[in-house]
Amino acid sequence: MADETTTIAMLKAKVADFVRARDWEKFHRPANLAKAISVEAAELLELFQWREDTQPLDAVAQGRVEEELADVVIYCLSAANTLGLDLSDIVLRKLARNESRYPAKEWRGRARDAARDP
Amino acid sequence: MADETTTIAMLKAKVADFVRARDWEKFHRPANLAKAISVEAAELLELFQWREDTQPLDAVAQGRVEEELADVVIYCLSAANTLGLDLSDIVLRKLARNESRYPAKEWRGRARDAARDP
Amino acid sequence: MADETTTIAMLKAKVADFVRARDWEKFHRPANLAKAISVEAAELLELFQWREDTQPLDAVAQGRVEEELADVVIYCLSAANTLGLDLSDIVLRKLARNESRYPAKEWRGRARDAARDP
Amino acid sequence: MADETTTIAMLKAKVADFVRARDWEKFHRPANLAKAISVEAAELLELFQWREDTQPLDAVAQGRVEEELADVVIYCLSAANTLGLDLSDIVLRKLARNESRYPAKEWRGRARDAARDP
Repeated sequence: MADETTTIAMLKAKVADFVRARDWEKFHRPANLAKAISVEAAELLELFQWREDTQPLDAVAQGRVEEELADVVIYCLSAANTLGLDLSDIVLRKLARNESRYPAKEWRGRARDAARDP
Repeated sequence: MADETTTIAMLKAKVADFVRARDWEKFHRPANLAKAISVEAAELLELFQWREDTQPLDAVAQGRVEEELADVVIYCLSAANTLGLDLSDIVLRKLARNESRYPAKEWRGRARDAARDP
Repeated sequence: MADETTTIAMLKAKVADFVRARDWEKFHRPANLAKAISVEAAELLELFQWREDTQPLDAVAQGRVEEELADVVIYCLSAANTLGLDLSDIVLRKLARNESRYPAKEWRGRARDAARDP
Repeated sequence: MADETTTIAMLKAKVADFVRARDWEKFHRPANLAKAISVEAAELLELFQWREDTQPLDAVAQGRVEEELADVVIYCLSAANTLGLDLSDIVLRKLARNESRYPAKEWRGRARDAARDP
Protein backbone atom coordinates (compact mmCIF):
# COMPACT_ATOMS: atom_id res chain seq x y z
CA MET A 1 0.00 0.00 0.00
CA ALA A 2 1.18 3.50 -0.84
CA ASP A 3 -0.11 4.45 2.62
CA GLU A 4 2.94 2.67 4.11
CA THR A 5 5.38 5.13 2.57
CA THR A 6 3.32 8.27 1.91
CA THR A 7 3.66 10.95 4.57
CA ILE A 8 1.01 13.54 5.40
CA ALA A 9 3.47 16.22 4.26
CA MET A 10 3.70 14.59 0.82
CA LEU A 11 -0.08 14.70 0.33
CA LYS A 12 -0.29 18.24 1.70
CA ALA A 13 2.35 19.33 -0.82
CA LYS A 14 0.42 17.75 -3.72
CA VAL A 15 -2.76 19.59 -2.69
CA ALA A 16 -0.87 22.87 -2.22
CA ASP A 17 0.61 22.50 -5.73
CA PHE A 18 -2.84 21.93 -7.23
CA VAL A 19 -4.29 25.00 -5.48
CA ARG A 20 -1.30 27.23 -6.31
CA ALA A 21 -1.27 26.25 -9.99
CA ARG A 22 -4.84 27.61 -10.28
CA ASP A 23 -4.24 30.69 -8.12
CA TRP A 24 -6.99 29.35 -5.84
CA GLU A 25 -5.37 30.30 -2.51
CA LYS A 26 -7.75 33.26 -2.38
CA PHE A 27 -10.71 30.86 -2.39
CA HIS A 28 -9.17 28.33 0.01
CA ARG A 29 -9.77 30.43 3.10
CA PRO A 30 -10.78 28.66 6.34
CA ALA A 31 -14.51 29.51 6.19
CA ASN A 32 -14.80 28.40 2.56
CA LEU A 33 -12.94 25.16 3.24
CA ALA A 34 -15.28 24.42 6.16
CA LYS A 35 -18.17 24.75 3.70
CA ALA A 36 -16.35 22.62 1.10
CA ILE A 37 -15.67 19.83 3.63
CA SER A 38 -19.37 19.75 4.59
CA VAL A 39 -20.45 19.71 0.95
CA GLU A 40 -18.12 16.82 0.05
CA ALA A 41 -19.09 14.93 3.22
CA ALA A 42 -22.73 15.17 2.11
CA GLU A 43 -21.84 13.85 -1.36
CA LEU A 44 -20.36 10.83 0.40
CA LEU A 45 -23.44 10.53 2.62
CA GLU A 46 -25.71 10.73 -0.44
CA LEU A 47 -24.33 7.39 -1.62
CA PHE A 48 -25.88 5.81 1.50
CA GLN A 49 -29.08 7.88 1.49
CA TRP A 50 -31.64 5.20 0.68
CA ARG A 51 -29.41 2.19 1.25
CA GLU A 52 -29.92 -0.31 4.06
CA ASP A 53 -27.00 -0.05 6.48
CA THR A 54 -26.21 -3.71 5.97
CA GLN A 55 -26.47 -3.66 2.15
CA PRO A 56 -22.97 -4.36 0.78
CA LEU A 57 -21.37 -1.86 -1.63
CA ASP A 58 -21.05 -3.11 -5.19
CA ALA A 59 -18.15 -2.06 -7.45
CA VAL A 60 -19.89 1.06 -8.84
CA ALA A 61 -20.88 2.35 -5.39
CA GLN A 62 -17.43 1.49 -3.97
CA GLY A 63 -15.77 3.54 -6.72
CA ARG A 64 -18.01 6.52 -5.94
CA VAL A 65 -17.37 6.17 -2.19
CA GLU A 66 -13.62 6.26 -2.85
CA GLU A 67 -13.92 9.43 -4.91
CA GLU A 68 -16.10 11.30 -2.44
CA LEU A 69 -13.95 10.23 0.52
CA ALA A 70 -10.91 11.49 -1.41
CA ASP A 71 -12.63 14.86 -1.89
CA VAL A 72 -13.24 15.22 1.85
CA VAL A 73 -9.60 14.36 2.61
CA ILE A 74 -8.27 16.73 -0.07
CA TYR A 75 -10.14 19.68 1.46
CA CYS A 76 -8.96 18.67 4.96
CA LEU A 77 -5.38 18.69 3.66
CA SER A 78 -5.99 22.10 2.08
CA ALA A 79 -7.39 23.41 5.38
CA ALA A 80 -4.24 22.16 7.14
CA ASN A 81 -2.18 24.02 4.52
CA THR A 82 -4.16 27.26 4.83
CA LEU A 83 -4.10 27.20 8.63
CA GLY A 84 -0.47 26.03 8.85
CA LEU A 85 -1.48 22.97 10.87
CA ASP A 86 0.49 19.86 11.64
CA LEU A 87 -2.30 17.42 10.84
CA SER A 88 -0.59 14.36 12.39
CA ASP A 89 -0.13 16.28 15.57
CA ILE A 90 -3.76 17.41 15.90
CA VAL A 91 -5.03 13.93 15.01
CA LEU A 92 -2.83 12.27 17.62
CA ARG A 93 -3.77 14.85 20.24
CA LYS A 94 -7.48 14.37 19.53
CA LEU A 95 -7.11 10.57 19.76
CA ALA A 96 -5.36 11.00 23.12
CA ARG A 97 -8.21 13.22 24.30
CA ASN A 98 -10.76 10.66 23.12
CA GLU A 99 -8.82 7.95 24.98
CA SER A 100 -9.47 9.76 28.25
CA ARG A 101 -13.04 10.79 27.41
CA TYR A 102 -14.04 7.28 26.35
CA PRO A 103 -12.03 4.86 28.50
CA ALA A 104 -11.93 1.49 26.75
CA LYS A 105 -13.10 -0.34 29.87
CA GLU A 106 -16.25 1.75 30.22
CA TRP A 107 -17.17 2.05 26.54
CA ARG A 108 -16.33 -1.41 25.21
CA GLY A 109 -19.08 -2.47 22.83
CA ARG A 110 -21.23 0.57 23.64
CA ALA A 111 -21.77 3.43 21.19
CA ARG A 112 -22.09 7.04 22.21
CA ASP A 113 -25.77 8.02 21.91
CA ALA A 114 -26.18 11.65 20.86
CA ALA A 115 -29.71 11.73 22.32
CA ARG A 116 -28.30 10.94 25.77
CA ASP A 117 -24.55 11.82 25.77
CA PRO A 118 -24.51 15.22 24.09
CA MET B 1 6.46 19.05 11.70
CA ALA B 2 5.34 15.53 12.54
CA ASP B 3 3.64 15.57 9.13
CA GLU B 4 7.12 15.21 7.53
CA THR B 5 7.66 11.75 9.01
CA THR B 6 4.15 10.45 9.77
CA THR B 7 2.77 8.12 7.13
CA ILE B 8 -0.92 7.61 6.41
CA ALA B 9 -0.50 3.98 7.50
CA MET B 10 0.76 5.12 10.92
CA LEU B 11 -2.33 7.28 11.52
CA LYS B 12 -4.64 4.56 10.19
CA ALA B 13 -3.09 2.10 12.64
CA LYS B 14 -3.62 4.49 15.58
CA VAL B 15 -7.29 4.90 14.67
CA ALA B 16 -7.74 1.15 14.17
CA ASP B 17 -6.24 0.53 17.64
CA PHE B 18 -8.62 3.03 19.22
CA VAL B 19 -11.64 1.44 17.55
CA ARG B 20 -10.57 -2.14 18.29
CA ALA B 21 -9.83 -1.41 21.98
CA ARG B 22 -13.51 -0.39 22.38
CA ASP B 23 -14.92 -3.19 20.23
CA TRP B 24 -16.40 -0.47 18.02
CA GLU B 25 -15.76 -2.18 14.66
CA LYS B 26 -19.44 -3.15 14.63
CA PHE B 27 -20.39 0.56 14.71
CA HIS B 28 -17.73 1.68 12.23
CA ARG B 29 -19.54 0.39 9.17
CA PRO B 30 -19.40 2.45 5.96
CA ALA B 31 -22.91 3.97 6.24
CA ASN B 32 -22.37 5.01 9.87
CA LEU B 33 -18.97 6.51 9.09
CA ALA B 34 -20.50 8.52 6.25
CA LYS B 35 -22.95 9.95 8.79
CA ALA B 36 -20.15 10.57 11.31
CA ILE B 37 -18.01 12.43 8.74
CA SER B 38 -20.98 14.71 7.88
CA VAL B 39 -21.72 15.33 11.56
CA GLU B 40 -18.10 16.28 12.36
CA ALA B 41 -17.84 18.40 9.20
CA ALA B 42 -20.88 20.35 10.43
CA GLU B 43 -19.29 20.85 13.85
CA LEU B 44 -16.36 22.41 12.02
CA LEU B 45 -18.72 24.52 9.90
CA GLU B 46 -20.58 25.66 13.02
CA LEU B 47 -17.45 27.52 14.13
CA PHE B 48 -17.85 29.73 11.03
CA GLN B 49 -21.64 29.96 11.17
CA TRP B 50 -22.10 33.64 12.04
CA ARG B 51 -18.55 34.73 11.34
CA GLU B 52 -17.55 37.08 8.52
CA ASP B 53 -15.45 35.16 6.01
CA THR B 54 -12.63 37.62 6.45
CA GLN B 55 -12.75 37.72 10.28
CA PRO B 56 -9.47 36.19 11.54
CA LEU B 57 -9.58 33.21 13.94
CA ASP B 58 -8.46 34.00 17.49
CA ALA B 59 -6.69 31.41 19.67
CA VAL B 60 -9.90 29.92 21.14
CA ALA B 61 -11.56 29.51 17.74
CA GLN B 62 -8.32 28.17 16.21
CA GLY B 63 -8.12 25.50 18.93
CA ARG B 64 -11.71 24.44 18.26
CA VAL B 65 -11.11 24.37 14.48
CA GLU B 66 -8.12 22.06 15.02
CA GLU B 67 -10.19 19.67 17.13
CA GLU B 68 -13.12 19.49 14.73
CA LEU B 69 -10.84 19.11 11.71
CA ALA B 70 -9.09 16.28 13.55
CA ASP B 71 -12.45 14.57 14.11
CA VAL B 72 -13.27 14.68 10.40
CA VAL B 73 -9.86 13.22 9.51
CA ILE B 74 -10.12 10.50 12.18
CA TYR B 75 -13.42 9.24 10.73
CA CYS B 76 -11.96 9.40 7.20
CA LEU B 77 -9.05 7.24 8.38
CA SER B 78 -11.52 4.83 10.01
CA ALA B 79 -13.52 4.66 6.77
CA ALA B 80 -10.31 3.80 4.91
CA ASN B 81 -9.67 1.05 7.47
CA THR B 82 -13.20 -0.37 7.27
CA LEU B 83 -13.22 -0.32 3.47
CA GLY B 84 -9.62 -1.53 3.13
CA LEU B 85 -8.68 1.54 1.11
CA ASP B 86 -5.26 2.89 0.24
CA LEU B 87 -6.05 6.50 1.11
CA SER B 88 -2.91 7.98 -0.52
CA ASP B 89 -3.77 6.17 -3.70
CA ILE B 90 -7.37 7.42 -3.90
CA VAL B 91 -6.30 10.98 -3.01
CA LEU B 92 -3.62 11.04 -5.71
CA ARG B 93 -5.98 9.52 -8.27
CA LYS B 94 -8.66 12.13 -7.45
CA LEU B 95 -6.12 14.96 -7.72
CA ALA B 96 -5.07 13.62 -11.14
CA ARG B 97 -8.72 13.52 -12.21
CA ASN B 98 -9.22 17.09 -10.99
CA GLU B 99 -6.09 18.13 -12.93
CA SER B 100 -7.77 17.09 -16.17
CA ARG B 101 -11.25 18.38 -15.22
CA TYR B 102 -9.93 21.79 -14.18
CA PRO B 103 -6.92 22.57 -16.39
CA ALA B 104 -4.80 25.21 -14.67
CA LYS B 105 -4.74 27.37 -17.79
CA GLU B 106 -8.52 27.58 -18.03
CA TRP B 107 -9.34 27.86 -14.32
CA ARG B 108 -6.57 30.12 -13.05
CA GLY B 109 -8.08 32.59 -10.57
CA ARG B 110 -11.65 31.45 -11.30
CA ALA B 111 -13.69 29.42 -8.81
CA ARG B 112 -16.15 26.73 -9.78
CA ASP B 113 -19.67 28.12 -9.34
CA ALA B 114 -22.13 25.44 -8.25
CA ALA B 115 -25.05 27.47 -9.61
CA ARG B 116 -23.55 27.30 -13.11
CA ASP B 117 -21.05 24.38 -13.22
CA PRO B 118 -22.99 21.60 -11.52
CA MET C 1 -53.36 19.34 14.88
CA ALA C 2 -52.20 22.94 14.81
CA ASP C 3 -50.87 22.14 11.33
CA GLU C 4 -54.48 22.17 10.06
CA THR C 5 -54.91 25.88 10.81
CA THR C 6 -51.36 27.27 10.88
CA THR C 7 -50.27 28.96 7.66
CA ILE C 8 -46.70 29.24 6.47
CA ALA C 9 -47.05 33.03 6.78
CA MET C 10 -47.92 32.68 10.47
CA LEU C 11 -44.76 30.68 11.19
CA LYS C 12 -42.63 33.01 9.06
CA ALA C 13 -43.95 35.98 11.08
CA LYS C 14 -43.08 34.28 14.38
CA VAL C 15 -39.53 33.64 13.20
CA ALA C 16 -39.18 37.18 11.85
CA ASP C 17 -40.31 38.57 15.22
CA PHE C 18 -37.75 36.43 17.06
CA VAL C 19 -34.93 37.61 14.78
CA ARG C 20 -35.97 41.25 14.83
CA ALA C 21 -36.30 41.37 18.64
CA ARG C 22 -32.60 40.42 18.87
CA ASP C 23 -31.45 42.65 16.03
CA TRP C 24 -30.19 39.51 14.32
CA GLU C 25 -31.20 40.43 10.74
CA LYS C 26 -27.56 41.34 10.13
CA PHE C 27 -26.54 37.73 10.90
CA HIS C 28 -29.45 36.10 9.03
CA ARG C 29 -27.97 36.69 5.60
CA PRO C 30 -28.43 33.98 2.95
CA ALA C 31 -24.89 32.51 3.18
CA ASN C 32 -25.03 32.31 6.98
CA LEU C 33 -28.48 30.70 6.92
CA ALA C 34 -27.24 28.10 4.43
CA LYS C 35 -24.51 27.24 6.96
CA ALA C 36 -27.03 27.23 9.83
CA ILE C 37 -29.39 24.86 7.97
CA SER C 38 -26.50 22.43 7.32
CA VAL C 39 -25.38 22.61 10.95
CA GLU C 40 -28.87 21.91 12.31
CA ALA C 41 -29.44 19.15 9.75
CA ALA C 42 -26.26 17.48 11.03
CA GLU C 43 -27.49 17.76 14.64
CA LEU C 44 -30.58 15.86 13.52
CA LEU C 45 -28.42 13.32 11.66
CA GLU C 46 -26.24 12.86 14.75
CA LEU C 47 -29.21 11.32 16.54
CA PHE C 48 -29.11 8.48 13.99
CA GLN C 49 -25.31 8.26 13.77
CA TRP C 50 -24.74 4.84 15.35
CA ARG C 51 -28.32 3.66 15.32
CA GLU C 52 -29.57 0.77 13.21
CA ASP C 53 -31.97 2.12 10.57
CA THR C 54 -34.69 -0.16 11.84
CA GLN C 55 -34.17 0.59 15.54
CA PRO C 56 -37.31 2.40 16.79
CA LEU C 57 -36.98 5.83 18.45
CA ASP C 58 -37.71 5.84 22.18
CA ALA C 59 -39.27 8.87 23.92
CA VAL C 60 -35.95 10.62 24.69
CA ALA C 61 -34.66 10.26 21.11
CA GLN C 62 -38.05 11.25 19.67
CA GLY C 63 -37.98 14.46 21.76
CA ARG C 64 -34.50 15.31 20.49
CA VAL C 65 -35.52 14.55 16.88
CA GLU C 66 -38.46 16.95 17.21
CA GLU C 67 -36.21 19.73 18.51
CA GLU C 68 -33.55 19.35 15.84
CA LEU C 69 -36.13 19.08 13.06
CA ALA C 70 -37.72 22.27 14.43
CA ASP C 71 -34.33 24.02 14.24
CA VAL C 72 -33.90 23.09 10.57
CA VAL C 73 -37.40 24.35 9.75
CA ILE C 74 -36.90 27.59 11.72
CA TYR C 75 -33.79 28.46 9.69
CA CYS C 76 -35.60 27.55 6.44
CA LEU C 77 -38.40 29.95 7.43
CA SER C 78 -35.80 32.61 8.22
CA ALA C 79 -34.17 32.07 4.82
CA ALA C 80 -37.56 32.54 3.17
CA ASN C 81 -37.96 35.79 5.13
CA THR C 82 -34.49 37.08 4.24
CA LEU C 83 -34.86 36.22 0.56
CA GLY C 84 -38.50 37.36 0.34
CA LEU C 85 -39.62 33.92 -0.84
CA ASP C 86 -43.08 32.45 -1.02
CA LEU C 87 -42.17 29.10 0.52
CA SER C 88 -45.45 27.35 -0.40
CA ASP C 89 -44.94 28.40 -3.96
CA ILE C 90 -41.37 27.10 -4.27
CA VAL C 91 -42.29 23.83 -2.51
CA LEU C 92 -45.26 23.21 -4.83
CA ARG C 93 -43.18 24.10 -7.90
CA LYS C 94 -40.40 21.72 -6.81
CA LEU C 95 -42.92 18.91 -6.18
CA ALA C 96 -44.34 19.50 -9.67
CA ARG C 97 -40.84 19.32 -11.13
CA ASN C 98 -40.17 16.10 -9.22
CA GLU C 99 -43.47 14.68 -10.54
CA SER C 100 -42.15 14.97 -14.08
CA ARG C 101 -38.59 13.89 -13.24
CA TYR C 102 -39.74 10.81 -11.34
CA PRO C 103 -42.94 9.61 -13.02
CA ALA C 104 -44.86 7.43 -10.54
CA LYS C 105 -45.20 4.63 -13.09
CA GLU C 106 -41.46 4.34 -13.68
CA TRP C 107 -40.26 4.88 -10.10
CA ARG C 108 -42.85 2.97 -8.08
CA GLY C 109 -41.05 1.11 -5.29
CA ARG C 110 -37.62 2.02 -6.64
CA ALA C 111 -35.34 4.51 -4.87
CA ARG C 112 -33.02 6.90 -6.66
CA ASP C 113 -29.46 5.57 -6.32
CA ALA C 114 -26.93 8.39 -6.10
CA ALA C 115 -24.14 6.09 -7.29
CA ARG C 116 -26.02 5.49 -10.55
CA ASP C 117 -28.53 8.36 -11.05
CA PRO C 118 -26.45 11.42 -10.18
CA MET D 1 -48.40 35.28 -1.33
CA ALA D 2 -49.61 31.69 -1.25
CA ASP D 3 -47.93 31.51 2.18
CA GLU D 4 -50.84 33.61 3.56
CA THR D 5 -53.40 30.90 2.88
CA THR D 6 -51.39 27.67 2.70
CA THR D 7 -51.40 25.64 5.90
CA ILE D 8 -48.65 23.27 6.98
CA ALA D 9 -51.19 20.44 6.73
CA MET D 10 -51.80 21.27 3.05
CA LEU D 11 -48.09 21.02 2.21
CA LYS D 12 -47.69 17.86 4.29
CA ALA D 13 -50.57 16.28 2.36
CA LYS D 14 -48.97 17.16 -1.00
CA VAL D 15 -45.69 15.55 0.05
CA ALA D 16 -47.48 12.48 1.44
CA ASP D 17 -49.32 12.08 -1.89
CA PHE D 18 -46.06 12.28 -3.83
CA VAL D 19 -44.41 9.65 -1.63
CA ARG D 20 -47.42 7.33 -1.60
CA ALA D 21 -47.87 7.48 -5.39
CA ARG D 22 -44.33 6.05 -5.76
CA ASP D 23 -44.66 3.52 -2.93
CA TRP D 24 -41.71 5.29 -1.31
CA GLU D 25 -42.96 5.12 2.32
CA LYS D 26 -40.53 2.22 2.82
CA PHE D 27 -37.61 4.53 1.97
CA HIS D 28 -38.91 7.54 3.92
CA ARG D 29 -37.97 6.16 7.32
CA PRO D 30 -36.64 8.60 9.96
CA ALA D 31 -32.95 7.68 9.61
CA ASN D 32 -33.05 7.97 5.81
CA LEU D 33 -34.87 11.29 5.96
CA ALA D 34 -32.26 12.64 8.37
CA LYS D 35 -29.62 11.73 5.76
CA ALA D 36 -31.73 13.28 2.96
CA ILE D 37 -32.17 16.55 4.87
CA SER D 38 -28.38 16.80 5.40
CA VAL D 39 -27.71 16.02 1.74
CA GLU D 40 -30.14 18.68 0.47
CA ALA D 41 -28.88 21.21 3.04
CA ALA D 42 -25.38 20.68 1.64
CA GLU D 43 -26.63 21.21 -1.92
CA LEU D 44 -27.96 24.57 -0.72
CA LEU D 45 -24.66 25.31 1.04
CA GLU D 46 -22.72 24.42 -2.12
CA LEU D 47 -24.26 27.44 -3.84
CA PHE D 48 -22.41 29.64 -1.33
CA GLN D 49 -19.21 27.57 -1.25
CA TRP D 50 -16.79 30.00 -2.88
CA ARG D 51 -18.98 33.08 -2.74
CA GLU D 52 -18.21 36.13 -0.61
CA ASP D 53 -20.84 36.44 2.12
CA THR D 54 -21.72 39.90 0.91
CA GLN D 55 -21.86 39.02 -2.81
CA PRO D 56 -25.51 39.44 -3.94
CA LEU D 57 -27.33 36.50 -5.57
CA ASP D 58 -28.04 36.95 -9.27
CA ALA D 59 -31.14 35.44 -10.92
CA VAL D 60 -29.52 32.08 -11.77
CA ALA D 61 -28.17 31.59 -8.25
CA GLN D 62 -31.44 32.77 -6.69
CA GLY D 63 -33.36 30.18 -8.72
CA ARG D 64 -31.01 27.41 -7.58
CA VAL D 65 -31.26 28.58 -3.94
CA GLU D 66 -35.06 28.39 -4.15
CA GLU D 67 -34.94 24.84 -5.50
CA GLU D 68 -32.49 23.55 -2.91
CA LEU D 69 -34.33 25.26 -0.06
CA ALA D 70 -37.54 23.65 -1.33
CA ASP D 71 -35.85 20.23 -1.24
CA VAL D 72 -34.84 20.69 2.40
CA VAL D 73 -38.38 21.73 3.34
CA ILE D 74 -39.96 18.84 1.40
CA TYR D 75 -37.90 16.28 3.34
CA CYS D 76 -38.72 18.05 6.63
CA LEU D 77 -42.42 17.79 5.75
CA SER D 78 -41.94 14.11 4.91
CA ALA D 79 -40.19 13.55 8.25
CA ALA D 80 -43.16 15.19 10.02
CA ASN D 81 -45.46 12.81 8.10
CA THR D 82 -43.41 9.70 8.89
CA LEU D 83 -43.07 10.58 12.57
CA GLY D 84 -46.68 11.82 12.91
CA LEU D 85 -45.49 15.23 14.09
CA ASP D 86 -47.41 18.47 14.37
CA LEU D 87 -44.75 20.64 12.76
CA SER D 88 -46.32 23.98 13.78
CA ASP D 89 -46.42 22.80 17.34
CA ILE D 90 -42.76 21.73 17.51
CA VAL D 91 -41.62 24.92 15.75
CA LEU D 92 -43.56 27.15 18.16
CA ARG D 93 -42.32 25.18 21.17
CA LYS D 94 -38.70 25.46 19.97
CA LEU D 95 -39.10 29.20 19.39
CA ALA D 96 -40.48 29.55 22.94
CA ARG D 97 -37.51 27.62 24.27
CA ASN D 98 -35.12 29.82 22.31
CA GLU D 99 -36.90 32.90 23.71
CA SER D 100 -35.89 31.85 27.22
CA ARG D 101 -32.41 30.62 26.25
CA TYR D 102 -31.56 33.80 24.36
CA PRO D 103 -33.37 36.67 26.12
CA ALA D 104 -33.69 39.58 23.70
CA LYS D 105 -32.24 42.01 26.20
CA GLU D 106 -29.05 40.04 26.68
CA TRP D 107 -28.51 38.92 23.07
CA ARG D 108 -29.52 42.01 21.11
CA GLY D 109 -27.04 42.48 18.27
CA ARG D 110 -24.78 39.69 19.50
CA ALA D 111 -24.48 36.35 17.70
CA ARG D 112 -23.99 33.05 19.43
CA ASP D 113 -20.36 31.98 18.97
CA ALA D 114 -20.01 28.21 18.71
CA ALA D 115 -16.35 28.40 19.78
CA ARG D 116 -17.40 29.95 23.11
CA ASP D 117 -21.11 29.15 23.69
CA PRO D 118 -21.30 25.46 22.83
